[in-house]
Amino acid sequence: MFQARLTAVGHGVQQLLDQILQGQSHQLAQAMGYAVQGGKRLRAFLVLETARLHGIEQPRALWPAAAIEAMHAYSLVHDDLPCMDDDDLRRGQPTVHVKWDQATAVLVGDALQALAFELAAHPSCSDDPAIRAELAYHLAVAAGGRGMVLGQAQDIAAETADAALDLATITGLQGRKTGALFHWSATAGPRMAKADIAPLGRYADALGLAFQIADDILDVEGDAGKAGKRLQKDCSAGKATFVSLLGLEAAKRRAHDLVAEAQAALEVYGEEGDILRQAAQFVIARDT
Amino acid sequence: MFQARLTAVGHGVQQLLDQILQGQSHQLAQAMGYAVQGGKRLRAFLVLETARLHGIEQPRALWPAAAIEAMHAYSLVHDDLPCMDDDDLRRGQPTVHVKWDQATAVLVGDALQALAFELAAHPSCSDDPAIRAELAYHLAVAAGGRGMVLGQAQDIAAETADAALDLATITGLQGRKTGALFHWSATAGPRMAKADIAPLGRYADALGLAFQIADDILDVEGDAGKAGKRLQKDCSAGKATFVSLLGLEAAKRRAHDLVAEAQAALEVYGEEGDILRQAAQFVIARDT
Repeated sequence: MFQARLTAVGHGVQQLLDQILQGQSHQLAQAMGYAVQGGKRLRAFLVLETARLHGIEQPRALWPAAAIEAMHAYSLVHDDLPCMDDDDLRRGQPTVHVKWDQATAVLVGDALQALAFELAAHPSCSDDPAIRAELAYHLAVAAGGRGMVLGQAQDIAAETADAALDLATITGLQGRKTGALFHWSATAGPRMAKADIAPLGRYADALGLAFQIADDILDVEGDAGKAGKRLQKDCSAGKATFVSLLGLEAAKRRAHDLVAEAQAALEVYGEEGDILRQAAQFVIARDT
Repeated sequence: MFQARLTAVGHGVQQLLDQILQGQSHQLAQAMGYAVQGGKRLRAFLVLETARLHGIEQPRALWPAAAIEAMHAYSLVHDDLPCMDDDDLRRGQPTVHVKWDQATAVLVGDALQALAFELAAHPSCSDDPAIRAELAYHLAVAAGGRGMVLGQAQDIAAETADAALDLATITGLQGRKTGALFHWSATAGPRMAKADIAPLGRYADALGLAFQIADDILDVEGDAGKAGKRLQKDCSAGKATFVSLLGLEAAKRRAHDLVAEAQAALEVYGEEGDILRQAAQFVIARDT
Protein backbone atom coordinates (compact mmCIF):
# COMPACT_ATOMS: atom_id res chain seq x y z
CA MET A 1 0.00 0.00 0.00
CA PHE A 2 2.70 2.42 1.03
CA GLN A 3 5.04 1.63 -1.86
CA ALA A 4 2.26 1.95 -4.45
CA ARG A 5 1.22 5.27 -2.93
CA LEU A 6 4.83 6.54 -2.87
CA THR A 7 5.16 5.71 -6.56
CA ALA A 8 1.89 7.47 -7.39
CA VAL A 9 2.97 10.52 -5.38
CA GLY A 10 6.23 10.61 -7.31
CA HIS A 11 4.40 10.64 -10.64
CA GLY A 12 1.96 13.33 -9.56
CA VAL A 13 4.65 15.65 -8.28
CA GLN A 14 6.90 15.06 -11.28
CA GLN A 15 4.04 15.86 -13.64
CA LEU A 16 3.35 19.18 -11.92
CA LEU A 17 7.02 20.16 -11.82
CA ASP A 18 7.48 19.19 -15.49
CA GLN A 19 4.42 21.18 -16.46
CA ILE A 20 5.74 24.29 -14.71
CA LEU A 21 9.26 24.01 -16.09
CA GLN A 22 8.34 22.91 -19.62
CA GLY A 23 6.95 26.32 -20.48
CA GLN A 24 10.52 27.58 -20.24
CA SER A 25 12.92 26.59 -22.99
CA HIS A 26 16.18 28.06 -21.71
CA GLN A 27 19.04 26.02 -20.29
CA LEU A 28 18.36 27.11 -16.71
CA ALA A 29 14.89 25.51 -16.72
CA GLN A 30 16.35 22.41 -18.35
CA ALA A 31 18.94 22.08 -15.57
CA MET A 32 16.25 22.76 -12.94
CA GLY A 33 14.16 19.95 -14.45
CA TYR A 34 17.17 17.64 -14.30
CA ALA A 35 17.76 18.49 -10.63
CA VAL A 36 14.17 17.72 -9.56
CA GLN A 37 14.09 14.28 -11.26
CA GLY A 38 14.02 11.14 -9.15
CA GLY A 39 14.45 10.78 -5.43
CA LYS A 40 12.18 8.97 -3.02
CA ARG A 41 9.58 11.79 -2.85
CA LEU A 42 9.14 11.01 0.84
CA ARG A 43 8.57 14.68 1.73
CA ALA A 44 5.92 15.04 -0.99
CA PHE A 45 4.32 11.85 0.29
CA LEU A 46 4.08 13.35 3.78
CA VAL A 47 2.38 16.47 2.42
CA LEU A 48 -0.11 14.52 0.31
CA GLU A 49 -0.87 11.88 2.91
CA THR A 50 -1.34 14.28 5.81
CA ALA A 51 -3.50 16.44 3.51
CA ARG A 52 -5.64 13.40 2.66
CA LEU A 53 -5.98 12.63 6.38
CA HIS A 54 -7.49 16.11 6.80
CA GLY A 55 -9.81 15.96 3.83
CA ILE A 56 -7.75 18.18 1.50
CA GLU A 57 -8.07 17.12 -2.14
CA GLN A 58 -4.93 15.98 -3.93
CA PRO A 59 -4.98 18.62 -6.74
CA ARG A 60 -4.54 21.27 -3.99
CA ALA A 61 -1.98 19.35 -1.97
CA LEU A 62 0.19 18.64 -5.02
CA TRP A 63 1.35 22.28 -4.93
CA PRO A 64 2.95 22.25 -1.48
CA ALA A 65 4.14 18.69 -2.23
CA ALA A 66 5.98 19.97 -5.33
CA ALA A 67 7.20 22.96 -3.29
CA ILE A 68 8.95 20.79 -0.71
CA GLU A 69 10.54 18.63 -3.42
CA ALA A 70 11.86 21.76 -5.17
CA MET A 71 13.26 22.94 -1.82
CA HIS A 72 14.85 19.56 -1.12
CA ALA A 73 16.32 19.40 -4.64
CA TYR A 74 17.86 22.88 -4.29
CA SER A 75 19.53 21.84 -1.02
CA LEU A 76 21.04 18.76 -2.70
CA VAL A 77 22.35 20.74 -5.69
CA HIS A 78 24.12 23.22 -3.39
CA ASP A 79 25.30 20.56 -0.91
CA ASP A 80 26.93 18.68 -3.79
CA LEU A 81 29.03 21.70 -4.89
CA PRO A 82 32.83 21.31 -4.75
CA CYS A 83 33.07 23.92 -1.97
CA MET A 84 30.50 21.96 0.09
CA ASP A 85 30.33 18.12 0.11
CA ASP A 86 31.91 17.83 -3.36
CA ASP A 87 29.80 14.99 -4.72
CA ASP A 88 29.75 13.95 -8.36
CA LEU A 89 26.89 11.46 -8.18
CA ARG A 90 23.33 12.01 -6.96
CA ARG A 91 20.31 9.78 -7.50
CA GLY A 92 22.53 7.69 -9.76
CA GLN A 93 23.25 10.61 -12.13
CA PRO A 94 26.05 13.17 -12.47
CA THR A 95 25.45 16.14 -10.15
CA VAL A 96 24.43 19.46 -11.73
CA HIS A 97 27.88 21.08 -11.47
CA VAL A 98 29.40 18.01 -13.13
CA LYS A 99 26.85 17.86 -15.95
CA TRP A 100 26.89 21.65 -16.46
CA ASP A 101 29.18 23.80 -14.33
CA GLN A 102 29.35 25.37 -10.87
CA ALA A 103 27.71 28.65 -11.88
CA THR A 104 24.75 26.72 -13.29
CA ALA A 105 24.53 24.65 -10.09
CA VAL A 106 24.47 27.78 -7.90
CA LEU A 107 21.77 29.36 -10.08
CA VAL A 108 19.70 26.16 -10.38
CA GLY A 109 19.66 25.88 -6.59
CA ASP A 110 18.75 29.55 -6.21
CA ALA A 111 15.91 29.27 -8.73
CA LEU A 112 14.60 26.04 -7.18
CA GLN A 113 14.43 27.70 -3.77
CA ALA A 114 12.42 30.59 -5.24
CA LEU A 115 10.22 28.04 -7.06
CA ALA A 116 9.49 26.32 -3.74
CA PHE A 117 8.06 29.56 -2.37
CA GLU A 118 6.19 30.27 -5.59
CA LEU A 119 4.48 26.86 -5.32
CA ALA A 120 3.78 27.12 -1.58
CA ALA A 121 2.19 30.58 -1.95
CA HIS A 122 0.47 29.70 -5.24
CA PRO A 123 -3.27 30.43 -5.51
CA SER A 124 -3.82 26.79 -6.54
CA CYS A 125 -2.74 25.63 -3.04
CA SER A 126 -5.83 26.98 -1.37
CA ASP A 127 -8.66 29.46 -1.81
CA ASP A 128 -7.82 30.73 1.65
CA PRO A 129 -4.91 33.20 1.42
CA ALA A 130 -4.21 32.76 5.15
CA ILE A 131 -3.22 29.17 4.42
CA ARG A 132 -0.91 30.18 1.57
CA ALA A 133 0.75 32.84 3.75
CA GLU A 134 1.19 30.29 6.57
CA LEU A 135 2.67 27.66 4.27
CA ALA A 136 5.16 30.13 2.79
CA TYR A 137 6.10 31.68 6.14
CA HIS A 138 6.74 28.37 7.89
CA LEU A 139 8.58 27.01 4.85
CA ALA A 140 10.95 30.00 5.07
CA VAL A 141 11.58 29.43 8.77
CA ALA A 142 12.15 25.68 8.22
CA ALA A 143 14.50 26.15 5.25
CA GLY A 144 16.50 29.19 6.35
CA GLY A 145 19.22 30.30 8.73
CA ARG A 146 17.61 28.84 11.86
CA GLY A 147 16.55 25.64 10.06
CA MET A 148 17.97 23.63 7.17
CA VAL A 149 20.73 26.05 6.12
CA LEU A 150 21.98 26.37 9.71
CA GLY A 151 22.04 22.57 10.02
CA GLN A 152 24.12 22.33 6.86
CA ALA A 153 26.49 25.09 8.08
CA GLN A 154 26.94 23.27 11.40
CA ASP A 155 27.50 19.99 9.58
CA ILE A 156 30.27 21.54 7.48
CA ALA A 157 31.81 23.25 10.53
CA ALA A 158 31.87 19.87 12.32
CA GLU A 159 34.23 18.49 9.68
CA THR A 160 36.99 20.86 10.70
CA ALA A 161 36.18 21.07 14.42
CA ASP A 162 38.84 19.96 16.90
CA ALA A 163 36.55 17.67 18.87
CA ALA A 164 33.89 15.30 17.54
CA LEU A 165 30.31 16.39 18.23
CA ASP A 166 28.34 14.76 21.00
CA LEU A 167 24.95 13.08 20.64
CA ALA A 168 22.90 16.11 21.73
CA THR A 169 24.69 18.39 19.27
CA ILE A 170 24.29 15.97 16.35
CA THR A 171 20.64 15.47 17.21
CA GLY A 172 20.08 19.24 17.13
CA LEU A 173 22.07 19.68 13.93
CA GLN A 174 20.17 16.91 12.13
CA GLY A 175 16.87 18.22 13.44
CA ARG A 176 17.63 21.40 11.50
CA LYS A 177 19.31 19.89 8.45
CA THR A 178 16.76 17.14 7.79
CA GLY A 179 14.09 17.39 10.46
CA ALA A 180 12.83 20.91 9.69
CA LEU A 181 11.64 20.02 6.16
CA PHE A 182 10.10 16.75 7.41
CA HIS A 183 8.24 18.75 10.04
CA TRP A 184 6.93 21.23 7.47
CA SER A 185 5.88 18.39 5.14
CA ALA A 186 3.99 16.37 7.74
CA THR A 187 2.26 19.43 9.21
CA ALA A 188 1.25 20.79 5.77
CA GLY A 189 -1.92 18.67 5.84
CA PRO A 190 -3.32 19.94 9.16
CA ARG A 191 -2.12 23.43 8.27
CA MET A 192 -4.15 23.36 5.04
CA ALA A 193 -7.18 22.23 7.06
CA LYS A 194 -6.52 24.71 9.92
CA ALA A 195 -6.36 21.70 12.25
CA ASP A 196 -4.02 20.92 15.16
CA ILE A 197 -0.49 20.31 13.86
CA ALA A 198 0.89 18.89 17.13
CA PRO A 199 0.39 15.11 16.57
CA LEU A 200 1.89 15.15 13.09
CA GLY A 201 4.64 17.48 14.32
CA ARG A 202 5.64 14.81 16.87
CA TYR A 203 5.39 12.13 14.19
CA ALA A 204 7.64 14.16 11.87
CA ASP A 205 10.27 14.88 14.52
CA ALA A 206 10.67 11.20 15.42
CA LEU A 207 10.53 10.23 11.75
CA GLY A 208 13.18 12.79 10.73
CA LEU A 209 15.60 11.57 13.37
CA ALA A 210 14.98 7.91 12.49
CA PHE A 211 15.56 8.84 8.84
CA GLN A 212 18.92 10.39 9.66
CA ILE A 213 20.06 7.49 11.84
CA ALA A 214 19.07 5.14 9.00
CA ASP A 215 21.13 7.33 6.65
CA ASP A 216 24.17 6.91 8.87
CA ILE A 217 23.59 3.13 9.00
CA LEU A 218 23.20 3.09 5.20
CA ASP A 219 26.47 4.99 4.88
CA VAL A 220 28.22 2.09 6.64
CA GLU A 221 26.22 -0.92 5.42
CA GLY A 222 24.63 0.25 2.20
CA ASP A 223 25.18 -0.57 -1.46
CA ALA A 224 26.39 2.50 -3.40
CA GLY A 225 24.82 1.16 -6.60
CA LYS A 226 21.37 1.06 -5.05
CA ALA A 227 21.82 4.32 -3.14
CA GLY A 228 22.87 6.19 -6.27
CA LYS A 229 25.50 8.18 -4.39
CA ARG A 230 28.88 7.69 -2.78
CA LEU A 231 28.79 5.92 0.59
CA GLN A 232 31.26 5.42 3.47
CA LYS A 233 31.84 9.15 3.23
CA ASP A 234 31.27 10.09 6.84
CA CYS A 235 33.51 7.35 8.12
CA SER A 236 36.38 8.25 5.81
CA ALA A 237 35.92 11.94 6.70
CA GLY A 238 36.20 11.03 10.41
CA LYS A 239 32.81 12.64 11.07
CA ALA A 240 30.85 11.82 14.19
CA THR A 241 27.58 10.10 13.25
CA PHE A 242 24.86 8.32 15.18
CA VAL A 243 26.66 5.08 14.30
CA SER A 244 30.10 6.26 15.44
CA LEU A 245 28.64 7.63 18.68
CA LEU A 246 26.19 4.84 19.55
CA GLY A 247 27.67 1.83 17.76
CA LEU A 248 25.85 0.03 14.95
CA GLU A 249 23.54 -2.13 17.08
CA ALA A 250 22.48 0.64 19.46
CA ALA A 251 21.90 2.96 16.49
CA LYS A 252 19.57 0.38 14.95
CA ARG A 253 17.70 -0.01 18.25
CA ARG A 254 17.39 3.78 18.57
CA ALA A 255 15.99 4.01 15.02
CA HIS A 256 13.43 1.29 15.85
CA ASP A 257 12.40 3.10 19.04
CA LEU A 258 11.93 6.33 17.10
CA VAL A 259 9.73 4.56 14.54
CA ALA A 260 7.57 3.27 17.39
CA GLU A 261 7.44 6.80 18.80
CA ALA A 262 6.41 8.22 15.42
CA GLN A 263 3.71 5.57 15.07
CA ALA A 264 2.41 6.25 18.59
CA ALA A 265 1.96 9.93 17.72
CA LEU A 266 -0.60 8.87 15.09
CA GLU A 267 -3.01 7.38 17.65
CA VAL A 268 -5.53 10.17 17.17
CA TYR A 269 -5.89 9.19 13.50
CA GLY A 270 -6.80 5.55 14.19
CA GLU A 271 -6.65 3.20 11.19
CA GLU A 272 -6.57 6.15 8.83
CA GLY A 273 -2.97 6.65 9.95
CA ASP A 274 -1.84 3.18 8.82
CA ILE A 275 -0.09 4.33 5.67
CA LEU A 276 1.93 6.87 7.68
CA ARG A 277 2.81 4.04 10.09
CA GLN A 278 4.11 2.07 7.10
CA ALA A 279 6.07 5.14 5.98
CA ALA A 280 7.79 5.23 9.37
CA GLN A 281 8.77 1.56 8.94
CA PHE A 282 10.05 2.36 5.45
CA VAL A 283 12.49 5.09 6.51
CA ILE A 284 14.57 2.59 8.48
CA ALA A 285 14.16 -0.33 6.07
CA ARG A 286 15.05 1.45 2.80
CA ASP A 287 18.24 0.67 0.85
CA THR A 288 18.41 4.04 -0.89
CA MET B 1 14.51 65.63 0.79
CA PHE B 2 15.24 62.44 -1.15
CA GLN B 3 18.74 61.92 0.25
CA ALA B 4 17.58 62.47 3.85
CA ARG B 5 14.76 60.01 3.31
CA LEU B 6 17.09 57.43 1.74
CA THR B 7 19.39 57.68 4.76
CA ALA B 8 16.46 57.28 7.17
CA VAL B 9 15.21 54.26 5.21
CA GLY B 10 18.66 52.73 5.42
CA HIS B 11 18.72 53.07 9.20
CA GLY B 12 15.22 51.68 9.66
CA VAL B 13 15.87 48.63 7.52
CA GLN B 14 19.28 47.98 9.08
CA GLN B 15 17.75 48.13 12.55
CA LEU B 16 15.11 45.55 11.68
CA LEU B 17 17.62 43.22 10.02
CA ASP B 18 20.04 43.55 12.94
CA GLN B 19 17.26 42.83 15.41
CA ILE B 20 16.29 39.66 13.56
CA LEU B 21 19.85 38.38 13.14
CA GLN B 22 21.16 39.38 16.59
CA GLY B 23 19.11 36.74 18.33
CA GLN B 24 21.34 34.21 16.59
CA SER B 25 24.90 33.89 17.82
CA HIS B 26 26.36 31.41 15.34
CA GLN B 27 28.78 32.29 12.57
CA LEU B 28 26.17 31.92 9.83
CA ALA B 29 24.04 34.75 11.28
CA GLN B 30 27.17 36.86 11.72
CA ALA B 31 28.09 36.42 8.06
CA MET B 32 24.47 37.11 7.04
CA GLY B 33 24.61 40.35 9.04
CA TYR B 34 27.84 41.29 7.28
CA ALA B 35 26.30 40.65 3.85
CA VAL B 36 23.25 42.86 4.48
CA GLN B 37 25.31 45.86 5.67
CA GLY B 38 25.51 48.97 3.54
CA GLY B 39 24.30 49.51 0.02
CA LYS B 40 22.10 52.29 -1.25
CA ARG B 41 18.83 50.77 0.06
CA LEU B 42 17.09 51.99 -3.07
CA ARG B 43 14.79 48.95 -3.22
CA ALA B 44 13.80 49.41 0.43
CA PHE B 45 13.16 53.08 -0.29
CA LEU B 46 10.79 52.13 -3.12
CA VAL B 47 8.83 49.82 -0.82
CA LEU B 48 8.58 52.36 1.99
CA GLU B 49 7.82 55.33 -0.21
CA THR B 50 5.16 53.61 -2.33
CA ALA B 51 3.66 52.27 0.91
CA ARG B 52 3.53 55.79 2.35
CA LEU B 53 1.85 57.00 -0.86
CA HIS B 54 -0.90 54.47 -0.20
CA GLY B 55 -1.33 55.21 3.49
CA ILE B 56 0.50 52.15 4.82
CA GLU B 57 2.35 52.88 8.08
CA GLN B 58 6.11 52.51 8.09
CA PRO B 59 6.32 49.84 10.86
CA ARG B 60 4.38 47.53 8.50
CA ALA B 61 6.25 48.47 5.35
CA LEU B 62 9.66 47.95 6.97
CA TRP B 63 9.10 44.19 6.73
CA PRO B 64 8.81 43.92 2.94
CA ALA B 65 11.52 46.64 2.72
CA ALA B 66 13.89 44.44 4.73
CA ALA B 67 12.76 41.44 2.67
CA ILE B 68 13.83 42.98 -0.62
CA GLU B 69 17.18 44.06 0.82
CA ALA B 70 17.81 40.51 2.07
CA MET B 71 16.92 39.22 -1.42
CA HIS B 72 19.20 41.76 -3.10
CA ALA B 73 22.05 40.99 -0.67
CA TYR B 74 21.75 37.24 -1.35
CA SER B 75 21.99 37.86 -5.10
CA LEU B 76 25.17 39.92 -4.62
CA VAL B 77 26.82 37.29 -2.38
CA HIS B 78 26.19 34.55 -4.96
CA ASP B 79 27.04 36.77 -7.97
CA ASP B 80 30.39 37.57 -6.37
CA LEU B 81 31.38 33.87 -6.05
CA PRO B 82 34.51 32.75 -7.96
CA CYS B 83 32.40 30.56 -10.27
CA MET B 84 30.18 33.55 -11.11
CA ASP B 85 31.53 37.12 -11.43
CA ASP B 86 34.49 36.42 -9.12
CA ASP B 87 34.54 39.72 -7.24
CA ASP B 88 36.60 40.31 -4.10
CA LEU B 89 35.19 43.74 -3.22
CA ARG B 90 31.59 44.76 -2.58
CA ARG B 91 30.30 47.93 -0.95
CA GLY B 92 33.94 48.75 -0.17
CA GLN B 93 34.46 45.56 1.87
CA PRO B 94 35.84 42.09 1.13
CA THR B 95 33.13 39.84 -0.32
CA VAL B 96 31.73 37.05 1.87
CA HIS B 97 33.72 34.24 0.21
CA VAL B 98 36.93 36.29 0.67
CA LYS B 99 36.24 37.13 4.32
CA TRP B 100 35.01 33.61 5.13
CA ASP B 101 35.01 30.94 2.42
CA GLN B 102 32.94 29.78 -0.56
CA ALA B 103 30.82 27.32 1.42
CA THR B 104 29.86 30.11 3.83
CA ALA B 105 29.02 32.40 0.90
CA VAL B 106 26.74 29.79 -0.70
CA LEU B 107 24.97 29.19 2.64
CA VAL B 108 24.72 32.89 3.53
CA GLY B 109 23.06 33.54 0.17
CA ASP B 110 20.72 30.58 0.62
CA ALA B 111 19.73 31.70 4.11
CA LEU B 112 19.22 35.32 3.02
CA GLN B 113 16.88 34.21 0.26
CA ALA B 114 14.82 32.21 2.77
CA LEU B 115 14.90 35.21 5.13
CA ALA B 116 13.48 37.42 2.36
CA PHE B 117 10.42 35.14 2.13
CA GLU B 118 10.13 34.90 5.90
CA LEU B 119 9.97 38.71 6.11
CA ALA B 120 7.61 39.13 3.15
CA ALA B 121 5.16 36.56 4.55
CA HIS B 122 5.63 37.71 8.16
CA PRO B 123 2.48 38.48 10.19
CA SER B 124 3.95 41.94 10.99
CA CYS B 125 3.67 42.90 7.29
CA SER B 126 -0.09 43.05 7.36
CA ASP B 127 -3.11 41.85 9.29
CA ASP B 128 -4.52 40.70 5.97
CA PRO B 129 -3.06 37.29 5.09
CA ALA B 130 -4.06 37.79 1.45
CA ILE B 131 -1.52 40.62 1.26
CA ARG B 132 1.24 38.50 2.82
CA ALA B 133 0.51 35.63 0.42
CA GLU B 134 0.56 38.07 -2.53
CA LEU B 135 3.84 39.66 -1.47
CA ALA B 136 5.53 36.28 -1.04
CA TYR B 137 4.13 34.84 -4.27
CA HIS B 138 5.14 37.79 -6.44
CA LEU B 139 8.53 37.99 -4.75
CA ALA B 140 9.14 34.36 -5.71
CA VAL B 141 8.19 35.02 -9.33
CA ALA B 142 10.37 38.15 -9.49
CA ALA B 143 13.41 36.51 -7.89
CA GLY B 144 13.31 33.06 -9.47
CA GLY B 145 13.96 31.21 -12.70
CA ARG B 146 11.81 33.48 -14.87
CA GLY B 147 13.04 36.66 -13.14
CA MET B 148 16.29 37.64 -11.44
CA VAL B 149 18.03 34.25 -11.52
CA LEU B 150 17.24 33.82 -15.23
CA GLY B 151 18.64 37.30 -15.91
CA GLN B 152 21.85 36.38 -14.12
CA ALA B 153 22.09 33.06 -15.99
CA GLN B 154 21.64 34.87 -19.31
CA ASP B 155 24.22 37.47 -18.31
CA ILE B 156 26.78 34.76 -17.57
CA ALA B 157 25.92 32.90 -20.78
CA ALA B 158 26.48 36.14 -22.73
CA GLU B 159 30.12 36.21 -21.64
CA THR B 160 30.90 33.05 -23.57
CA ALA B 161 28.46 33.56 -26.44
CA ASP B 162 29.86 33.76 -29.98
CA ALA B 163 28.04 36.95 -30.89
CA ALA B 164 27.48 40.05 -28.73
CA LEU B 165 23.90 40.51 -27.61
CA ASP B 166 21.69 43.06 -29.30
CA LEU B 167 19.82 45.86 -27.59
CA ALA B 168 16.48 44.03 -27.31
CA THR B 169 18.15 40.99 -25.73
CA ILE B 170 20.12 43.07 -23.22
CA THR B 171 17.01 45.05 -22.35
CA GLY B 172 15.12 41.82 -21.64
CA LEU B 173 18.00 40.32 -19.69
CA GLN B 174 18.41 43.41 -17.50
CA GLY B 175 14.66 43.65 -17.02
CA ARG B 176 14.91 40.24 -15.34
CA LYS B 177 18.24 40.66 -13.57
CA THR B 178 17.58 44.10 -12.07
CA GLY B 179 14.14 45.19 -13.18
CA ALA B 180 12.11 42.40 -11.58
CA LEU B 181 13.12 43.31 -8.00
CA PHE B 182 12.61 47.03 -8.73
CA HIS B 183 9.14 46.19 -10.00
CA TRP B 184 8.29 44.17 -6.88
CA SER B 185 9.63 46.96 -4.62
CA ALA B 186 7.73 49.82 -6.25
CA THR B 187 4.48 47.84 -6.45
CA ALA B 188 4.71 46.65 -2.82
CA GLY B 189 2.99 49.84 -1.63
CA PRO B 190 -0.14 49.56 -3.79
CA ARG B 191 -0.16 45.80 -3.22
CA MET B 192 -0.27 46.34 0.54
CA ALA B 193 -3.18 48.76 0.06
CA LYS B 194 -4.92 46.53 -2.52
CA ALA B 195 -4.69 49.44 -4.95
CA ASP B 196 -3.84 49.55 -8.68
CA ILE B 197 -0.20 48.57 -9.20
CA ALA B 198 -0.05 49.68 -12.87
CA PRO B 199 1.29 53.26 -12.52
CA LEU B 200 4.08 52.29 -10.13
CA GLY B 201 4.79 49.21 -12.25
CA ARG B 202 5.46 51.49 -15.25
CA TYR B 203 7.54 53.78 -13.02
CA ALA B 204 9.61 50.82 -11.80
CA ASP B 205 10.21 49.39 -15.27
CA ALA B 206 11.55 52.69 -16.63
CA LEU B 207 13.51 53.28 -13.42
CA GLY B 208 15.09 49.81 -13.47
CA LEU B 209 16.28 50.21 -17.04
CA ALA B 210 17.62 53.73 -16.36
CA PHE B 211 19.41 52.29 -13.31
CA GLN B 212 21.10 49.62 -15.40
CA ILE B 213 22.15 52.04 -18.15
CA ALA B 214 23.58 54.30 -15.43
CA ASP B 215 25.46 51.26 -14.07
CA ASP B 216 27.00 50.67 -17.48
CA ILE B 217 27.97 54.36 -17.71
CA LEU B 218 29.43 54.17 -14.18
CA ASP B 219 31.42 51.11 -15.19
CA VAL B 220 33.15 53.26 -17.84
CA GLU B 221 33.30 56.66 -16.16
CA GLY B 222 33.05 55.91 -12.45
CA ASP B 223 35.50 56.07 -9.56
CA ALA B 224 36.12 52.59 -8.10
CA GLY B 225 36.87 54.09 -4.67
CA LYS B 226 33.46 55.71 -4.48
CA ALA B 227 31.66 52.76 -6.06
CA GLY B 228 33.21 50.33 -3.58
CA LYS B 229 33.63 47.66 -6.24
CA ARG B 230 35.80 46.94 -9.27
CA LEU B 231 34.87 48.92 -12.38
CA GLN B 232 35.71 48.70 -16.09
CA LYS B 233 34.84 45.04 -15.79
CA ASP B 234 32.35 44.76 -18.60
CA CYS B 235 34.60 46.52 -21.06
CA SER B 236 37.61 44.33 -20.24
CA ALA B 237 35.39 41.24 -20.43
CA GLY B 238 34.27 42.31 -23.93
CA LYS B 239 30.64 42.22 -22.80
CA ALA B 240 27.97 44.06 -24.73
CA THR B 241 26.47 46.81 -22.58
CA PHE B 242 24.12 49.71 -23.23
CA VAL B 243 27.23 51.88 -23.62
CA SER B 244 28.98 49.56 -26.07
CA LEU B 245 25.78 49.21 -28.13
CA LEU B 246 24.54 52.81 -28.06
CA GLY B 247 27.73 54.79 -27.45
CA LEU B 248 28.26 56.89 -24.32
CA GLU B 249 26.27 59.96 -25.35
CA ALA B 250 23.26 58.10 -26.70
CA ALA B 251 23.25 55.91 -23.57
CA LYS B 252 23.10 59.03 -21.40
CA ARG B 253 20.24 60.43 -23.51
CA ARG B 254 18.37 57.13 -23.23
CA ALA B 255 18.80 57.13 -19.45
CA HIS B 256 17.44 60.69 -19.29
CA ASP B 257 14.45 59.76 -21.44
CA LEU B 258 13.70 56.80 -19.17
CA VAL B 259 13.82 59.03 -16.10
CA ALA B 260 11.30 61.35 -17.76
CA GLU B 261 9.17 58.31 -18.58
CA ALA B 262 9.34 57.09 -14.97
CA GLN B 263 8.37 60.53 -13.71
CA ALA B 264 5.47 60.77 -16.13
CA ALA B 265 4.07 57.49 -14.80
CA LEU B 266 3.64 59.21 -11.41
CA GLU B 267 1.13 61.76 -12.70
CA VAL B 268 -1.77 60.15 -10.86
CA TYR B 269 0.00 60.83 -7.54
CA GLY B 270 0.38 64.60 -8.09
CA GLU B 271 2.81 66.38 -5.74
CA GLU B 272 2.79 63.41 -3.40
CA GLY B 273 4.97 61.67 -5.97
CA ASP B 274 7.74 64.27 -5.87
CA ILE B 275 10.14 62.23 -3.78
CA LEU B 276 9.82 59.31 -6.21
CA ARG B 277 10.54 61.80 -9.04
CA GLN B 278 13.72 62.77 -7.20
CA ALA B 279 14.58 59.12 -6.80
CA ALA B 280 14.36 58.69 -10.56
CA GLN B 281 16.78 61.61 -11.01
CA PHE B 282 19.09 60.03 -8.45
CA VAL B 283 19.47 56.68 -10.22
CA ILE B 284 21.21 58.34 -13.17
CA ALA B 285 23.14 60.93 -11.13
CA ARG B 286 24.68 58.63 -8.49
CA ASP B 287 28.40 57.88 -8.30
CA THR B 288 28.02 54.57 -6.50
